[in-house]
Amino acid sequence: MATIYAVGVGPGDPELITRKAERIIRHCPTICAPTGAADAASYALSIVEHLLDRSKQEILTRVFPMLKKGPELEAAWEAVADEVIDRIDQGEDVAFITIGDPCLYSTFLYIYKIIRAKRADITVEIIPGISSINAAAAAAGIPLGIAGEHIAILPATYEDYELRKILKEFDTVVLMKVNRVFDRVYAMLMELGLVDKGVFIRRVGSPQQEVIFDLTSLVGKELDYLSMLIVRR
Amino acid sequence: MATIYAVGVGPGDPELITRKAERIIRHCPTICAPTGAADAASYALSIVEHLLDRSKQEILTRVFPMLKKGPELEAAWEAVADEVIDRIDQGEDVAFITIGDPCLYSTFLYIYKIIRAKRADITVEIIPGISSINAAAAAAGIPLGIAGEHIAILPATYEDYELRKILKEFDTVVLMKVNRVFDRVYAMLMELGLVDKGVFIRRVGSPQQEVIFDLTSLVGKELDYLSMLIVRR
Repeated sequence: MATIYAVGVGPGDPELITRKAERIIRHCPTICAPTGAADAASYALSIVEHLLDRSKQEILTRVFPMLKKGPELEAAWEAVADEVIDRIDQGEDVAFITIGDPCLYSTFLYIYKIIRAKRADITVEIIPGISSINAAAAAAGIPLGIAGEHIAILPATYEDYELRKILKEFDTVVLMKVNRVFDRVYAMLMELGLVDKGVFIRRVGSPQQEVIFDLTSLVGKELDYLSMLIVRR
Repeated sequence: MATIYAVGVGPGDPELITRKAERIIRHCPTICAPTGAADAASYALSIVEHLLDRSKQEILTRVFPMLKKGPELEAAWEAVADEVIDRIDQGEDVAFITIGDPCLYSTFLYIYKIIRAKRADITVEIIPGISSINAAAAAAGIPLGIAGEHIAILPATYEDYELRKILKEFDTVVLMKVNRVFDRVYAMLMELGLVDKGVFIRRVGSPQQEVIFDLTSLVGKELDYLSMLIVRR
């Protein structure tokens, strides 16, 4: 029986793809890059474009940019899952490509859940990728954790009291997609005397990568969707 | 001027090395694999052995198995740092290889600190690697985080009250090197009704890899040094 591969393609630099990801992407007749964000599908594809043979491989992209939640989005994911299951039933391996790592906040995880519920008999193999978190720390030249340090990773969904507590209790706090909430987070770092302990990284692993230690320069600015903040006490 | 590269070589499977890591390991005349654990240096080397040319490359391994902390260990790290700086001053690039990712609990981070303090003029480039955390989640087929979920990563150094609080407040808790404290953690998972929410992964990415969902089967056993527990509520 055919296999579904969830393949992490790393943060953006095509050199940060693993050999295993490369082998599987070259091998699968169908490459699937569905996403909730308008530019994420094309970004994932651009990372692996040099590995694809569009004359022999079918590329499925499905974008649902206007939907955040609810039955309409569920139905759209389900349609993708059905399409993939159909390929598997025809005996064709399918590779889902995801930016970064498939297990860390990827859109693949939604479809995985649906496929698991519909067809527990289909083999799903997950190929880990370099996550944007590890790549961002490397680009900034800072540790995520040394020895016994505690690390917290939070998407941009938290109340101020939660964030305050976590910033006090953890050695390293990684705030994903911080663009949406930056000014609020900045105010809290000021309050806690941590403004000089943070580093902002945008579009890590891409040609647009920027590492910014002067957080004050970012206040009130329009920030990139693919950006994060790492705070180390 | 020559460059120090800190190169993450992934969790164990040589196919989980990135192209960038491969290029740099092949290119550097000196490969350094120092470590605090007796078998970790040889493990990192075994992952990249097929990339090395021992007739042309010098392999520095330094192991300090008996020392946990203190001035003796500091002096040992310092000796390695001096050796590396010496190579750099001779114009030779040096690659430090680390299992997993260099920014996440690697021994490189100690030497990095020393080198930064001694010689801020030397360029240090960090090449991210697949961390054992991402590889373990992939092997177990479970998400680390979906949508707005909060993730905590803890080495085996916490008090019971800390762990209890974090298990209650975070969606996913990753416990590194859990072998030392497993029975204590198991008791707490029982208390919180989370025993069936945990998965134990040992030696991820190696031929000895095991994924164990039945935590009860591990109680009282001698567990592997390279093992972790992922708990998802």
